[in-house]
Amino acid sequence: MTRTVGIIGLGLIGGSMAIDLKRRGFASKIVGVDSDPLNAAAALKIGLADEMTGIEDCVAKSDIVVLAIPAGAAVTMLSRVLDMFAHESAYDRKIVMDTCSTKSQIVRGAHYHPCRGQYVATHPMAGTEYSGPWAAEPNLFDGRACIFANAEESDPWALKTIEELYDCLNMRPIYMPADQHDMHTAYVSHISHVTSFALALTVLEKEKDEKHIFDLASGGFSSTVRLAKSSSDMWVPILTQNRDNVLRAIDTYLERMKEFRDAIADFDEERIESLIHEANRIKKIIR
Amino acid sequence: MTRTVGIIGLGLIGGSMAIDLKRRGFASKIVGVDSDPLNAAAALKIGLADEMTGIEDCVAKSDIVVLAIPAGAAVTMLSRVLDMFAHESAYDRKIVMDTCSTKSQIVRGAHYHPCRGQYVATHPMAGTEYSGPWAAEPNLFDGRACIFANAEESDPWALKTIEELYDCLNMRPIYMPADQHDMHTAYVSHISHVTSFALALTVLEKEKDEKHIFDLASGGFSSTVRLAKSSSDMWVPILTQNRDNVLRAIDTYLERMKEFRDAIADFDEERIESLIHEANRIKKIIR
Repeated sequence: MTRTVGIIGLGLIGGSMAIDLKRRGFASKIVGVDSDPLNAAAALKIGLADEMTGIEDCVAKSDIVVLAIPAGAAVTMLSRVLDMFAHESAYDRKIVMDTCSTKSQIVRGAHYHPCRGQYVATHPMAGTEYSGPWAAEPNLFDGRACIFANAEESDPWALKTIEELYDCLNMRPIYMPADQHDMHTAYVSHISHVTSFALALTVLEKEKDEKHIFDLASGGFSSTVRLAKSSSDMWVPILTQNRDNVLRAIDTYLERMKEFRDAIADFDEERIESLIHEANRIKKIIR
Repeated sequence: MTRTVGIIGLGLIGGSMAIDLKRRGFASKIVGVDSDPLNAAAALKIGLADEMTGIEDCVAKSDIVVLAIPAGAAVTMLSRVLDMFAHESAYDRKIVMDTCSTKSQIVRGAHYHPCRGQYVATHPMAGTEYSGPWAAEPNLFDGRACIFANAEESDPWALKTIEELYDCLNMRPIYMPADQHDMHTAYVSHISHVTSFALALTVLEKEKDEKHIFDLASGGFSSTVRLAKSSSDMWVPILTQNRDNVLRAIDTYLERMKEFRDAIADFDEERIESLIHEANRIKKIIR
């Protein structure tokens, strides 16, 4: 089967998908779009796409259009692509999917569109703290979970095709409503980025002489602060689109931090010990 | 040269030291002590020590005594070992060193001891979130920094010997006053443990159905929460001994978190973006 996959946004996620979909035979051709000319040129040079083009041309040439751009731009881009589907009768078997980390707003935005069935909302739970076409890598998705949000709103044939796409990427599918997804990811992903950003700011403010950080930072610090390298392009829309869930998570977190602070301030060793024991239960979940 | 190293506490740090000091030829014999009978038996079975014994016997047999026990117990144990040095004339060329993550209190406790010169205060900046003899591993210290605190209070010959010991472990020596050490480590190590514990508590409280955490947790979450596996035996004394510095770090951190929270609550995209850009500067320091 010859199938062309169009990828809008050839950064970490789009680029890594391009690599595996092509070499594993799901796509016979990758047509790419990137609004940043430098990234577009790099994607072509690295070989992520067979061709770089504009949006209209990409949609015209592709059987499946993947939106792998930040969550803010994706909302607008999705309605633009669905509008193209609606106005070209030859486009009635094309599919568009997104890969955004927040799902409620994008799913809500497409809800009443006549071509809603041709859209599949997904969130592949994989990534690194790096971005851009240079960050793309093979096997990025292997063994990880992929969320399908509001899958019942997609046409069955479209859903099935995208399930095959993620199967080719070796991802485990999980189905849930978009609002459930956003609530859970606020706790297991979004909040950990905020805590990491705040930790980086704290340390940078204190340690004006950066030499000391480098000397004294052990592996633990690096791993905790790693996410603070993440790009604002990606995270500003996530944090604002998922505002209510993220605020609830931050507020719970601030309460726990204050409990720790008070226990330390009071030299209350028993209380600190019991908080640490409780936290240690995470061992059972994260290997 | 035949040299016997006695290690009190054959956990992650003591055990890993035992492995490398023996196989790299710094120690001809390792005599171990562990107050936990199961750990003591395991250390012998794994082969971390040539012999497990009691404290008096260990000090009698060793040229160098390493205290690799939690910071609270180490303060008491150090004065006990120094007292043994003071009461046995044959012990005047023995050395005791500690490996604790907090330095002010232990250094202050030994300050007026007649055998203070035979004590070298160090903090090898290496470790993992695991503990016990099973967590010991070869090459743990390679390429990392080792802090020597108040080195000028040690006798030059004793300091030189311990410098050789850490050179054998491939560590880079850094010299600083104990109070400076404690201030810096509050920011680049202790606070990141507290934030990790608090994050684990937040998520565990919210996600009663632990299946979801496992499904949705991406690599970023695991790395941020990794330190929450750390043991209370180690961390309760660190957090209380370094109370003032840790509280200052937590307070700065809480302010940064609140700035983030307010910017998200206000949908202030520019402010979020500028906070993330500031935090991104950590890239230059942590690779």
